[in-house]
Amino acid sequence: MELRAIGHVESTLVDPATAPKQGHEGAPPAWLVFDDAVAAGLADLRAGDQIIVLTWLDRARRDLLVVHPRDAPAAPETGVFSTRSADRPNPIGVHPTAILEVDGTRILVAEIEAVDGTPIVDVKPVITPRAEAG
Amino acid sequence: MELRAIGHVESTLVDPATAPKQGHEGAPPAWLVFDDAVAAGLADLRAGDQIIVLTWLDRARRDLLVVHPRDAPAAPETGVFSTRSADRPNPIGVHPTAILEVDGTRILVAEIEAVDGTPIVDVKPVITPRAEAG
Repeated sequence: MELRAIGHVESTLVDPATAPKQGHEGAPPAWLVFDDAVAAGLADLRAGDQIIVLTWLDRARRDLLVVHPRDAPAAPETGVFSTRSADRPNPIGVHPTAILEVDGTRILVAEIEAVDGTPIVDVKPVITPRAEAG
Repeated sequence: MELRAIGHVESTLVDPATAPKQGHEGAPPAWLVFDDAVAAGLADLRAGDQIIVLTWLDRARRDLLVVHPRDAPAAPETGVFSTRSADRPNPIGVHPTAILEVDGTRILVAEIEAVDGTPIVDVKPVITPRAEAG
């Protein structure tokens, strides 16, 4: 189960401690910079597409199973699988966002709460059952 | 970037070819069977919680960058990052579902389109910006 980076995030966010929390507003636009080797997989992505970007949060700790909720450090510890903490056994980031611009293998997205240099491992379209059924 | 399984799916689905497509109705309830080593991380999960389960789709091909959409095999090939095909460079499954029952380290979920034995790599709560802001 070896993940291979397919690209990386190019962002103005550099410090994980000040990165906006997942699910909150405030993450900046950022470029997704993909390896040329996966260009064929990107060919049908367009500005306006709603996507989910999966990243590998490589600065996270993998040895924590309980954490203090980030917005309430004094609160009791919580099992990591009930939080969006980056610290968890497999630190995969799940980032819903929208494509603003496509420039070859560089894709500008509206917001992503991942620091500069974070490896990208997958991109999926957002699928809503209602839209598919219609 | 080495993923470690934290458990596996126990499902009546055995054949990937007949598994319901992601985003479609029809996936059956299934048990998520976690390793005892991660029990502390599960402690705050409850029946009724909306979660996202991440799996490693270990029967997928990793060498495909374009695929024929599964519901339209005659349609033109599409870049994998515009599809939910299991075949992709990093075959991570993203499965929104709901918890029906918690029994120690076994968690029954309402539906998951993953075949029996699929490794689980993460569980996250569903966070809606609206709910958090409210």
